[in-house]
Amino acid sequence: MKLFHGWLSSASRRVRLCMAEKGIPYESVPVDLSRQEQHSPAYLALNPDGVVPALQIGPGESLYESATICEYLDDKYPERPLRPADPYQRALMRNVVRWTDDKCLPNLLILNWSLALQPAASRWSDAELKAKLERIPTAERREAWVRIARRPYTDEEKAAAWQALVALVDKMEDMLSSSAWLVADAYSLADIAAAPFIARIDEIGPQVLDAAAHPRVHDWWSRMRQRPAFAAARFERFDDSLRARRAGAATG
Amino acid sequence: MKLFHGWLSSASRRVRLCMAEKGIPYESVPVDLSRQEQHSPAYLALNPDGVVPALQIGPGESLYESATICEYLDDKYPERPLRPADPYQRALMRNVVRWTDDKCLPNLLILNWSLALQPAASRWSDAELKAKLERIPTAERREAWVRIARRPYTDEEKAAAWQALVALVDKMEDMLSSSAWLVADAYSLADIAAAPFIARIDEIGPQVLDAAAHPRVHDWWSRMRQRPAFAAARFERFDDSLRARRAGAATG
Repeated sequence: MKLFHGWLSSASRRVRLCMAEKGIPYESVPVDLSRQEQHSPAYLALNPDGVVPALQIGPGESLYESATICEYLDDKYPERPLRPADPYQRALMRNVVRWTDDKCLPNLLILNWSLALQPAASRWSDAELKAKLERIPTAERREAWVRIARRPYTDEEKAAAWQALVALVDKMEDMLSSSAWLVADAYSLADIAAAPFIARIDEIGPQVLDAAAHPRVHDWWSRMRQRPAFAAARFERFDDSLRARRAGAATG
Repeated sequence: MKLFHGWLSSASRRVRLCMAEKGIPYESVPVDLSRQEQHSPAYLALNPDGVVPALQIGPGESLYESATICEYLDDKYPERPLRPADPYQRALMRNVVRWTDDKCLPNLLILNWSLALQPAASRWSDAELKAKLERIPTAERREAWVRIARRPYTDEEKAAAWQALVALVDKMEDMLSSSAWLVADAYSLADIAAAPFIARIDEIGPQVLDAAAHPRVHDWWSRMRQRPAFAAARFERFDDSLRARRAGAATG
């Protein structure tokens, strides 16, 4: 199997962590989002939405949507299960995953893109922007690129995005009051879905994760990072990765 | 089990159809969306997002999100399975369901709300609107209600929503080229997810479903409506239901 992914993408980090936890080997194919490789015809054949990640399984078989990919892996490789066996607990788990998709991802996008993509995109000529937009398959993403290139998210919008993102921490603190992990007292795809967002919260506003502010999430995050799979999933620091990428671009 | 649902809501129709196909009995609790019963404290205790449907399973156990509810029912009641057994086909099914959630539902909302909610909402005083908005838990839905009450969707926006909605029909025509039902040649939650949107397309622009325009979807829709569960799920015509409701409101 080949995983097409972005090192800094939260949805990609989710799938890398899931595969590491299950011990599933795969060939890593990094997609350079700053060069819009995700809008290339070859990538669009894997995911018509033009976003990472995508999993190439075999001839003519590929999947996109990180939530779908993780459930597929757990269906296909039932050893080391990452979903509760009980139908109700499993449904609660699915709603946590969906919550992070619907409420965290769009808000983190505003913060991440402002840092990672805006500096280059703001320098594109109108002709360059037009050419890039023509390759983007969805209206939502075209709008996000226009925002980044021409009408950067305002400080007020970024503050609102941050508030919406950290609502995850309150929700988790509540869930962890009766359980060591988010659902059914067992490590699951819900914890895996939350991890990339908590990783970014820890970088952007680490005080939110202080033991005094959210003791149970603080402890959860500590236990999460101690798992061997966490290191294997390679959540390098976002700012370090950006800096390395820019240094690489400047020298080569 | 009690199903809290709206008769005209696509997500509610999806769950009613799923329960009818599986032959699961339930107590029907209609929620009057035109009176914003979904924002009442009692309903918000079932679904903090304040949208229908919600399934009350037992003391302290309830679920929301129609995709999650349908998978829960199929996990809990494995007789008459509505998901492919093969992990890859099951993943493809999940992505069809997600596609209707992400790409059809927001667009149909624009069309449905303009018809069903705008006439009353446009007459609310500023104080009434403010009081109603204070009960709505999510920013997205507050924005949609402000649009309906004060800045109705334009004809251009409604046309764009229609175009985005009927993209489903092209996608289905393609999927049905190799299969009698949307996924893996077997009736599944993917077909159930699509049905409420095809039902509305059939009312708003039936020419899209002509045998000449989309022969396979035309045939699929005919087979769908012949299933006994379809009648049990009560997809009454949207316009008829609205008319009956207004007649009822005028007389009582």
